[in-house]
Amino acid sequence: MHDPSKQNAVDMVNARSKTSFDVSAVRNFLRNGDANWERHSRLVQILAEDPVFDKSRRDFITREERYYRGQRMINRIFELQEKHQWTSEELNMAISAVDEALPIALHLVAFEPVFRMQASPELLTKYDALIATRGILGCYLQTELAHGTNVGSLETTATYISETQEFEIHSPTLTSSKWWIGALGKTATHGVVQAKLILPGGKDIGPHLFFLQLRSMDDHKVLPGITIGDIGPKVMMGYPAPDNGFARFDHVRIPKGNMLSKFAQVTKEGKYVRPPHAKLSYGGMMYIRSSMVTGAGWTISRAATIAMRYTTVRRQGERGPDGLEIQVINYPSTYYRLLPILAHAYVFIELGRSVSQAFASLSARLAQGDTSLLAEMHATTSGLKVLATTTGIADIEVARRSMGGHGYSVFSGLGHVYADYVPSATYEGDNFALDQQVVRGALKSLKAFLSLVSGRSLSPDAVSAALSPSTAYLRLLLPALPSNPSAIPKITESRWENPTDVILLLEWRAALVVQALAKEVEAHPSESVSGSVDAGAVQRAARAITDAFVAARVGTMIQECPLQGEAGKAVKGLYMLYLLTSLESGLVDLLSFGIVTSALQQPGTQDVTLGLRHAIKALCEVLLPNAIGLTDAFGFTDWELHSALGVSDGRVYEALWAAAQREPLNAHEVTPAYEESIKPILQRGQRLAGAKL
Amino acid sequence: MHDPSKQNAVDMVNARSKTSFDVSAVRNFLRNGDANWERHSRLVQILAEDPVFDKSRRDFITREERYYRGQRMINRIFELQEKHQWTSEELNMAISAVDEALPIALHLVAFEPVFRMQASPELLTKYDALIATRGILGCYLQTELAHGTNVGSLETTATYISETQEFEIHSPTLTSSKWWIGALGKTATHGVVQAKLILPGGKDIGPHLFFLQLRSMDDHKVLPGITIGDIGPKVMMGYPAPDNGFARFDHVRIPKGNMLSKFAQVTKEGKYVRPPHAKLSYGGMMYIRSSMVTGAGWTISRAATIAMRYTTVRRQGERGPDGLEIQVINYPSTYYRLLPILAHAYVFIELGRSVSQAFASLSARLAQGDTSLLAEMHATTSGLKVLATTTGIADIEVARRSMGGHGYSVFSGLGHVYADYVPSATYEGDNFALDQQVVRGALKSLKAFLSLVSGRSLSPDAVSAALSPSTAYLRLLLPALPSNPSAIPKITESRWENPTDVILLLEWRAALVVQALAKEVEAHPSESVSGSVDAGAVQRAARAITDAFVAARVGTMIQECPLQGEAGKAVKGLYMLYLLTSLESGLVDLLSFGIVTSALQQPGTQDVTLGLRHAIKALCEVLLPNAIGLTDAFGFTDWELHSALGVSDGRVYEALWAAAQREPLNAHEVTPAYEESIKPILQRGQRLAGAKL
Repeated sequence: MHDPSKQNAVDMVNARSKTSFDVSAVRNFLRNGDANWERHSRLVQILAEDPVFDKSRRDFITREERYYRGQRMINRIFELQEKHQWTSEELNMAISAVDEALPIALHLVAFEPVFRMQASPELLTKYDALIATRGILGCYLQTELAHGTNVGSLETTATYISETQEFEIHSPTLTSSKWWIGALGKTATHGVVQAKLILPGGKDIGPHLFFLQLRSMDDHKVLPGITIGDIGPKVMMGYPAPDNGFARFDHVRIPKGNMLSKFAQVTKEGKYVRPPHAKLSYGGMMYIRSSMVTGAGWTISRAATIAMRYTTVRRQGERGPDGLEIQVINYPSTYYRLLPILAHAYVFIELGRSVSQAFASLSARLAQGDTSLLAEMHATTSGLKVLATTTGIADIEVARRSMGGHGYSVFSGLGHVYADYVPSATYEGDNFALDQQVVRGALKSLKAFLSLVSGRSLSPDAVSAALSPSTAYLRLLLPALPSNPSAIPKITESRWENPTDVILLLEWRAALVVQALAKEVEAHPSESVSGSVDAGAVQRAARAITDAFVAARVGTMIQECPLQGEAGKAVKGLYMLYLLTSLESGLVDLLSFGIVTSALQQPGTQDVTLGLRHAIKALCEVLLPNAIGLTDAFGFTDWELHSALGVSDGRVYEALWAAAQREPLNAHEVTPAYEESIKPILQRGQRLAGAKL
Repeated sequence: MHDPSKQNAVDMVNARSKTSFDVSAVRNFLRNGDANWERHSRLVQILAEDPVFDKSRRDFITREERYYRGQRMINRIFELQEKHQWTSEELNMAISAVDEALPIALHLVAFEPVFRMQASPELLTKYDALIATRGILGCYLQTELAHGTNVGSLETTATYISETQEFEIHSPTLTSSKWWIGALGKTATHGVVQAKLILPGGKDIGPHLFFLQLRSMDDHKVLPGITIGDIGPKVMMGYPAPDNGFARFDHVRIPKGNMLSKFAQVTKEGKYVRPPHAKLSYGGMMYIRSSMVTGAGWTISRAATIAMRYTTVRRQGERGPDGLEIQVINYPSTYYRLLPILAHAYVFIELGRSVSQAFASLSARLAQGDTSLLAEMHATTSGLKVLATTTGIADIEVARRSMGGHGYSVFSGLGHVYADYVPSATYEGDNFALDQQVVRGALKSLKAFLSLVSGRSLSPDAVSAALSPSTAYLRLLLPALPSNPSAIPKITESRWENPTDVILLLEWRAALVVQALAKEVEAHPSESVSGSVDAGAVQRAARAITDAFVAARVGTMIQECPLQGEAGKAVKGLYMLYLLTSLESGLVDLLSFGIVTSALQQPGTQDVTLGLRHAIKALCEVLLPNAIGLTDAFGFTDWELHSALGVSDGRVYEALWAAAQREPLNAHEVTPAYEESIKPILQRGQRLAGAKL
């Protein structure tokens, strides 16, 4: 008799055997070299074997218990760090190998860098080592109950008292309560507070940073004048371990030296000393945003691995030539959803690497007071943050839903990935607010560019020099330039394998969308960009701009891909799929502006986009046999994925069965609800029906 | 001093005062008349005042406790039913007023109707009253661990033993375990099982239904030969109360009379007697699907109410003329997301009503053996189910994310709405599988229509008679017909308020997409529709077909709207917004086929879609002052919404503060994690830093 649970393993072995390339070569490429991969792999093994990191009960406990568990894991990680003498890079690797957010992240990612970048030398001397070793635990208190993105509206005050040379931190209203502050609720002993600096006489200088102690170092009790608590659970059981908290301050005094005064200062007498460069403190935010591209890549890779594996062994629907139902991955409606996700993962991982390198150059220049790269980096990271998080959020759910009914089981392992990832659309800059900034930057660049070239005949080199990578597409608006490929390329079927044309179409889209937006803004002048144009225009333009930038980078990635032979072919195939599906997702613009109408028309068809759609299908069919190999190359262990549907050996039904046996409701054959509720229901029913069973 | 938490209430009062119409008129329209509204209102009040339905601890407890709580609520509802002598309609109202899925739903929606429709008279006599009064509690065991949509592949067997006149129910493999069965895990005493009927001699007759007892009526223990359990939690804490379960059967014998044999039967000797109409049993599935349109409407209305209220009182970003930050709802990027959601809610609520009426006529005809309406109803309900659930799932998240950071708090009240609603894409027919059926039906209709009209000159009436409402768009493919508006309408700016043109454009899209798909299928013949065309084509065509059908219905709703004056204007405005945004979401097709290129081109602009976008913006601006009135008209109480961000009086910050105080972590000033984990971390750090604080 045919047994589907035995077939699972067979299907997985067969799928794996179709891989045309050396998986370890691609894996080491994705993992930034063999040495890095081996380090990661060693760390993962240490954690997986340690009972503190056991995940088998994780899905059944309350959020409160998830907090306690989170703190146990953090303590154990630091213990292991000391034992194995991990570097801080290895520490970060270990923390990210735990597949959930931990409160300590806020100490490491927000509190420590802000403190280090902006504290005075005296404060640094006193606390730097303690912060580095977690002898104190910090948090970063910025947002308030009624104030998020717009820092200028924060209500918390820090009033300078010249008599005692102190600042008084105060929350004048309910809505000035600090809110959403990671690790504030129950963990942090210290914090950096954003508060409006008020000088003697009442002058408001706007938000500045102050260091203060929150809890006693003797017994962890909250210090006088401060009210602290956890703000409660997040939706969908997201971020269960972090204790995002609130705090209110009732005239809390701190010494003058606790102002983070590397840049701005207050004199003893209460005079304000201005910072030398207003933007020097922007670096941290950009660093976090740029790291979110890589983060999206690895998040999507997890979803792609699980979904690809499950749909490979799940058989459903029509019967194939072997008499068995077809493997779900072989339905066009499945692979057409999953292969583009895989492509996103590959592109974002590699793209994130190059963005991080760019950020390193920026930091080096910033350290020398050179802010020339700042605007470009800001524009780029804003757009990429929106693109990467929007794509990542959507992809996790596409992957989960591609798994049908079982995708809704917690044992699919993707529910918490979505719940933990979905706030990325909002944190580190709300995506809608960032879109505005991307568009504002582009309109400024357009204006500068037009006034530069107006009436002059510039050489192509001079034009290139005037444009940054994020605004390169603007060159297309200069049709007079002889060397400019001003004509929209004609794309025939045979050319779909050529990335250059696809990139050019995406750049044309950005150029025409931005040009049209500029016209609209000019026609309806208003305070804000969004007020003057149709409601979807800003989002649309920001996407077009970012897609063009990324497409050009993907072009470079295809040219410079270090992988040889079949491995190179497969990875470059995914990059190409990224370009084609990026073009597909931009079709409304491409068609609205007539870019594609002329480019894609095929004789004998009515649907001008049919050629593109066929090209995507054809490329998917080429990539499909390597789908398992390309996901294996991410190198996830079963412990990391913690998914019954994504087990490496494909034995998903045995894994689901085993997982269900651990459900706490199954501890009793007869549920406690029987005596309490079910029996009364049955007895009432039998009485009403006049029947006793 | 300005206090944002006081401003909240002022903003809400002001917003409400802008309402141009009588809210109760619209509310009674939405709620199906005053009598119905009052009944609903009375029931809600009873539940809200009863401590069993208190929601204040709901967000903090485990899924196991959610099951116990769910059963307590069910028991209490039946107690209340007896006390207040509720009709079964009132019972259903009460159950749906509890804003979460309960295990009893499976008894009421799946077990009871299937049993009643298909049981023999003898079985009915014995169990009908008991089932109606819940003297036994049932479940419906269809899907298996390895088998979902494709019922033909189920593995569970029911072998007829003529010697004893029994059936033997058996699970031959791990993967034949029944899985996902609602109320099976810990609740149901009885069930209806789908199993392959095997006749003596081994002939497999395919899936049939059998009634069997699962648990003892004395002590609720599982009967011998049966293994039962709960399958574990769902993702994102979705559906926490229902005990979806698994079951394996080890040669379990049941009497011959337990086969549900109203249609198909087995004789004593083991001969099979065929059912008279194979499709008579389809009704139930269609009923559930058709009710999902209304369900989507009410789900979206909840999300729209919460988001509209919060963004009305939340102020952020630029300062307005009053010196305060602008209300978030006034940003085009906000209202452009939220008003279309409101339009979806209004359309689906009304559309669902007409679908239910159509279903009632179908049922009446089916009862007389007339299956002539079945195919049309099947096509319509399949397409509507996909459209309504896809839209609903997306809208909940759009609403939640429009609320920025606080949208991620569990107190937003939308996390569980999403988690509970998202499986609707998969259950009652996976949306991707239903898309296939919609398209297959359309291609069949196209073929039949073309062969009907081929070479003949039919009158418009004859053409209309040949086409059902779901295929009416096909008339456009007959340009020869004199009265046929074969030309694609030219749309000028002044005509955007006229629904007829918009509907016609959407019908043109359906006609051309289906025609093109038919050509592709013809060119690449394959077993399955999806195998022969590009991967996205099926989904795209199904959407175009359903959009055209719905657009025509919305046209009728605009014509026949019973609301007068300002109320009618506002509601019809929402219907119109539905049409315009439906057109916008179909732009890729409309542009690809050249439908819009000629229709929308405006002189002096490059972007052919600009006119449509401006029309949407203009309509949004007309509707915006009524946004609070239109959401108030849904009639939700604060108890029903259970959302700190959606409180009726707008005092969201006070509500958030109060909710956070209930978080269990806040029960201790010093968390138990301090001694266990945090103190060791701090001490280790101080030792490593060589500092004691």
